[in-house]
Amino acid sequence: MIYFDNAATTKPDSVCLGKAEKYLTDQFYNPSALYAEGYNLHLDLRGARESILSHIADKNDYALIITSCGSEADNQAVFCAGRRGNIVTTLGEHAAVYSAVTEAKNRGIDVRFAKLNSDGSVNEDSLLSLTDDKTSLVSVIHVNNETGAVNDINRLAGKVKKINPHAVFHSDGVQAFGKIPYKLSKDIDLYSLSAHKIGAVKGTGALIYRKKMALKPFIYGGGQENGLRSGTENVFGIKMLEYAAGNVYAEIQENYKKIAAVKQRLWELLDKNIFTLLSPEKGSPYILTVAASGVRGETALHAVNDRGLIIGTGSACSSNAVKRHSRVITACEIADSLADSVLRISFCHKNTLEQAKAAAGILNKTVGELKEALK
Amino acid sequence: MIYFDNAATTKPDSVCLGKAEKYLTDQFYNPSALYAEGYNLHLDLRGARESILSHIADKNDYALIITSCGSEADNQAVFCAGRRGNIVTTLGEHAAVYSAVTEAKNRGIDVRFAKLNSDGSVNEDSLLSLTDDKTSLVSVIHVNNETGAVNDINRLAGKVKKINPHAVFHSDGVQAFGKIPYKLSKDIDLYSLSAHKIGAVKGTGALIYRKKMALKPFIYGGGQENGLRSGTENVFGIKMLEYAAGNVYAEIQENYKKIAAVKQRLWELLDKNIFTLLSPEKGSPYILTVAASGVRGETALHAVNDRGLIIGTGSACSSNAVKRHSRVITACEIADSLADSVLRISFCHKNTLEQAKAAAGILNKTVGELKEALK
Repeated sequence: MIYFDNAATTKPDSVCLGKAEKYLTDQFYNPSALYAEGYNLHLDLRGARESILSHIADKNDYALIITSCGSEADNQAVFCAGRRGNIVTTLGEHAAVYSAVTEAKNRGIDVRFAKLNSDGSVNEDSLLSLTDDKTSLVSVIHVNNETGAVNDINRLAGKVKKINPHAVFHSDGVQAFGKIPYKLSKDIDLYSLSAHKIGAVKGTGALIYRKKMALKPFIYGGGQENGLRSGTENVFGIKMLEYAAGNVYAEIQENYKKIAAVKQRLWELLDKNIFTLLSPEKGSPYILTVAASGVRGETALHAVNDRGLIIGTGSACSSNAVKRHSRVITACEIADSLADSVLRISFCHKNTLEQAKAAAGILNKTVGELKEALK
Repeated sequence: MIYFDNAATTKPDSVCLGKAEKYLTDQFYNPSALYAEGYNLHLDLRGARESILSHIADKNDYALIITSCGSEADNQAVFCAGRRGNIVTTLGEHAAVYSAVTEAKNRGIDVRFAKLNSDGSVNEDSLLSLTDDKTSLVSVIHVNNETGAVNDINRLAGKVKKINPHAVFHSDGVQAFGKIPYKLSKDIDLYSLSAHKIGAVKGTGALIYRKKMALKPFIYGGGQENGLRSGTENVFGIKMLEYAAGNVYAEIQENYKKIAAVKQRLWELLDKNIFTLLSPEKGSPYILTVAASGVRGETALHAVNDRGLIIGTGSACSSNAVKRHSRVITACEIADSLADSVLRISFCHKNTLEQAKAAAGILNKTVGELKEALK
């Protein structure tokens, strides 16, 4: 079985699991406990947070709190930074931001959605025209999880700050962290990430915050995570994130080039009479989004699954929702005939050219047959 | 080393870990994904939720959402059910409720705290006198995490509903679930629990809710947990909770009796010239709270730790906070001389009479020596 749905989740890295296992067995203590066994874990976690942060931000200016997932980090950003005036975001956000700002709207906040370009990136003029002196929060996804379009968030944040230096700039970096070589510029205030997208485990995410901003807690209680996220620390999950992030960042440039080649090979080998490219040329190498006109995405997904290939249709996170087309794909103004047929093929750093070749073979044959049969 | 700080966290059960390990390796898929491997996990989780719920509530009337911890479940209860009028709670709540209602107060909600009896249970007259027709939420901890006092929440909820049938009744059941034989009465609307207190792992909790109530989400996003808690499901953590809950509930009566004997033995063997009993006779058998007048709790904790015994002082969850005495111990109106010296000794179902005997020996000798030296 070839697993090409890594944007939905990744297989936990076995070496990292081996290293972190002791936090499920011998080192099971509560890091808030006062005795040595607990306090040592407290110190261990402090190092883990610093290590995770170091890959992407300057520790002099930024700190990081561990959350239970990327969605929680996004919700903390929206509900704790977007409490007044207006929130400016985009039509290309992950559901964790999109649904949270929709709730903020229900609570009386003026929420404004910037348009997308056809590749899924945000239209800069639209975003900036919506931002004004009453904007409390601007949230722009770093890498679009459905098309792989990359937003130049440092540039956008700089332009937003020129309009309103007090607006908080947040980015959902879940599909970027560990994949796209990137460092936070001084204009980014909040940045969300998720552990299980890079070979760590489900149940851990993080919110990076600029130290100078007044971040509010989202979950109140015992005061863990420097008072900003209460609840007993998930030591195993945090250490897994530390280890997995260390792995991918050690070779992030090499991985980027390698996976760009995997993506390119797969696209080269796909039959252009069947597949239309939706993801941008300059998008994340980790996401290849295509459409096979005339074949519903879900039908294709099940058919290739039967032949040994796992891919996605859109965002796994919103597959429970009742809807015809993806909200993001619709915002890209993609024709209905293609919007029904979206396939998201997504990679991890371990994928190979051989897997790309095999996957292309399965896709061409299977979707080709379906297309013929459904004519 | 004898570990008697099980109210802070428990060692994950090795048999459960062995069974759940596959969810970190082969069965790593996203349960929201449409292909068979994902959908099978979706079904697996549905069964897990039903199994966890079945131990304590009728599935016809109640459902359960998985959260990332007990604190998140408590926060969801407070912020999603206590949005108007007043909130009535107690001075004996865990920090996850106490800090959340304090924040609710900052947001303009009238928050009222019922007094405690000296054993840490809530004073019923005080609670009921604060409840009125404007009360949106009443939250009463089931088992006090610092003294082990058990509140008869079914009885209290019944009386609250007579005053105001529309008030939502929530209980933090973190120290009760899997330990105290109990079923939710029809008057309980919300009930929080935590996985890592019963031999499962950190990073998983749950909120049980009465199906007829209009529960609001706390974390918005992809619509997982029936739309009530978004974020990719932590499959490993949920299955661990299912397995661990199955373990402890299979023998909950036997465990209760066994641990009551362990607690009794330990108390019998403690030197009454050194230790004063703070926890109630009829409290949870899993928590024995004592004070050793003249010896600071933290000093005693470190000293017995050096001799092979791990115990707590108060709630591990609030040990980061700067304070002289525990808020809950203060509310019990315990004399300052004792409030400085509180030791919380807490058990899991695997503890034995032999461990109790050994722990008593360490406590008598070590704290006795300290008391002598500090005279």
